Amino acid sequence: MRRALEIAAWGTGRVEPNPQVGAVIVDEQGTLICEGHHQQFGGPHAEVNAITAAAGNTAGKTLFVTLEPCSHHGKTPPCSQAVIDAGFAKVVVAMLDPSPHTAGRGVQQLREAGIEVEVGLLETDARALIAPFLKLLTTGRPYVHAKWAMTLDGKLASRTGHSQWISSPESRAIVHELRGRIDAIVAGAKTVAGDDPLLTARPVGPRTATRVVVDSQAELPLNSQLVKTISEAPLLLATRHEAAPQRVEQLQTAGVEVVQFASPAGTGVPLGELLDELGRRQMTNVLFEGGGTVLGSLFDEQLVDEVHVFVAPKIVGGLSAITPVGGLGLEQIPALPSLNIPSMTIVGGDVYIHGRVNQADA
Amino acid sequence: MRRALEIAAWGTGRVEPNPQVGAVIVDEQGTLICEGHHQQFGGPHAEVNAITAAAGNTAGKTLFVTLEPCSHHGKTPPCSQAVIDAGFAKVVVAMLDPSPHTAGRGVQQLREAGIEVEVGLLETDARALIAPFLKLLTTGRPYVHAKWAMTLDGKLASRTGHSQWISSPESRAIVHELRGRIDAIVAGAKTVAGDDPLLTARPVGPRTATRVVVDSQAELPLNSQLVKTISEAPLLLATRHEAAPQRVEQLQTAGVEVVQFASPAGTGVPLGELLDELGRRQMTNVLFEGGGTVLGSLFDEQLVDEVHVFVAPKIVGGLSAITPVGGLGLEQIPALPSLNIPSMTIVGGDVYIHGRVNQADA
Repeated sequence: MRRALEIAAWGTGRVEPNPQVGAVIVDEQGTLICEGHHQQFGGPHAEVNAITAAAGNTAGKTLFVTLEPCSHHGKTPPCSQAVIDAGFAKVVVAMLDPSPHTAGRGVQQLREAGIEVEVGLLETDARALIAPFLKLLTTGRPYVHAKWAMTLDGKLASRTGHSQWISSPESRAIVHELRGRIDAIVAGAKTVAGDDPLLTARPVGPRTATRVVVDSQAELPLNSQLVKTISEAPLLLATRHEAAPQRVEQLQTAGVEVVQFASPAGTGVPLGELLDELGRRQMTNVLFEGGGTVLGSLFDEQLVDEVHVFVAPKIVGGLSAITPVGGLGLEQIPALPSLNIPSMTIVGGDVYIHGRVNQADA
Repeated sequence: MRRALEIAAWGTGRVEPNPQVGAVIVDEQGTLICEGHHQQFGGPHAEVNAITAAAGNTAGKTLFVTLEPCSHHGKTPPCSQAVIDAGFAKVVVAMLDPSPHTAGRGVQQLREAGIEVEVGLLETDARALIAPFLKLLTTGRPYVHAKWAMTLDGKLASRTGHSQWISSPESRAIVHELRGRIDAIVAGAKTVAGDDPLLTARPVGPRTATRVVVDSQAELPLNSQLVKTISEAPLLLATRHEAAPQRVEQLQTAGVEVVQFASPAGTGVPLGELLDELGRRQMTNVLFEGGGTVLGSLFDEQLVDEVHVFVAPKIVGGLSAITPVGGLGLEQIPALPSLNIPSMTIVGGDVYIHGRVNQADA
């Protein structure tokens, strides 16, 4: 099952909004015969790929699969029938598929066909692997990654807004790799105004993210890099109903999709509702790249699932220099959200700290 | 010489304001016979300890020593004479001693006595080891360490000033070890008012640091932990001439040493002059523990030699939460001071980043 999880992960960035799934076939002596994973959205599922790789040598064998085989006709025929037809003696499933069209029926069908089925092996790892899929399925919102690169004294930029380049080329390469397997890259209007970023993956990855600007006043300049590169990647502007109509129209004419949200006067774009909207578009993973205002609101509303932080060994100083997470903030240290078993690695002279967010009980 | 440098470092925190020195004796075949290091201020020097350990077996041997043997009568007789008397065939010295009372005369005496002398082996490492000694000798100011513990979003404390405990017990143990081998621990008045710290090493180390509060208004409360524990470690208040005389008198009556500095109206205690004062007291290493205002001034004035930063994988958020280095700050990222080959290690779940500061050329 560990191998099945390992190959399942190869589908990350390629299969969403499907879950990543891996399958391995083992003979009566416990020797691995062949394996398969879900490689591409719309392509064959992991079980079918493994069965195909076995070339008929499946009768009496054991199948390990990281997610319950599906029991419905979707883009491909049901995997449960393919598993039954292959004549497996036993099927080991890491976790049931909570999708309404499966939800235990896959396992039920296998058992009715006389196959021994075991459920729950390495279930925690299997759940962690497809956490973004599970979140979208259960909440309707994408899984939220937050990324920032800061100095050793916790600044996103100098007091004059200068931020290129705090982190090392190697750190930036990790960010581009992440951008290339994500559905949307989100930045605030101030960051866009200050940095004039492209928000594209360079080199391109398996998927092209929609670039999203959180811009309550719809102030995005028409001559910004984002607007100028609209043919390379979609651009969505999230703003309020109160944004100036002529600005909205100009942006739309330039090819920008504008989505307007209702929010009380004096507040920004409601980020929870933005996530709802991105979820409706079947976006599984979104990456918030700052700045401090947007990330502050995200954390204030407990909307972050995972963080990627790069700490560069440089000191900029400055009482007025911007810090990564603004907003209101929390009061007491013991109540802080912390990372769950974060990974900490050295990347090109920076420290890269990465992990899932545990919301502490206040 | 590498071994000599290694054992020299054992004197750190014990020998200052002397330099740490190590010596090893090697026979004609290059085999290490014995070694010695300067263990304690006022005690015998490294060469003498090594010669004593050799118990007469020194004639014709080679001595490796990390610093030129002294040529003067100080607290102990000159080492140059002891080395000559021991009958060494060769002496290898990592670096000359720039102290005015030696400055090449030690080596000169050895050469005049017919000993072959080689200078400069691993000189860079030898200089790095005794950088605090060299700084005090050449500038009259102690070597400045700056320490802070921050959250993953670069905050020293929450917006309400809550900061206990951002870092892990393991990180705090490293700070206490550092405190125990340093001459002064410095904190700003705001940090003292907020945290009411002890600023002592727990457990105690080889030396007891003087606690220094930078407090331009002399507002330190008489019922603070610092004043209440004055019998455990000296307490020095650095303030301005304009501080209220009755406050100064009250603090002096309570046993606090008050040092007053001239500074223009509206400015704080001049930190360069404070360092001059601490240097006059033969303090070799001082540790600034914050907060953001004092560290901001220190960095603005380029007074920091080495930093110790602990990054905890917790997110506090808050636009008004205090950050580690305030002050004016720099403007351009390429001009930032960076750390020279920083060490980055994981300590009890935090990242500990430690290194010497390179001032960049703007």
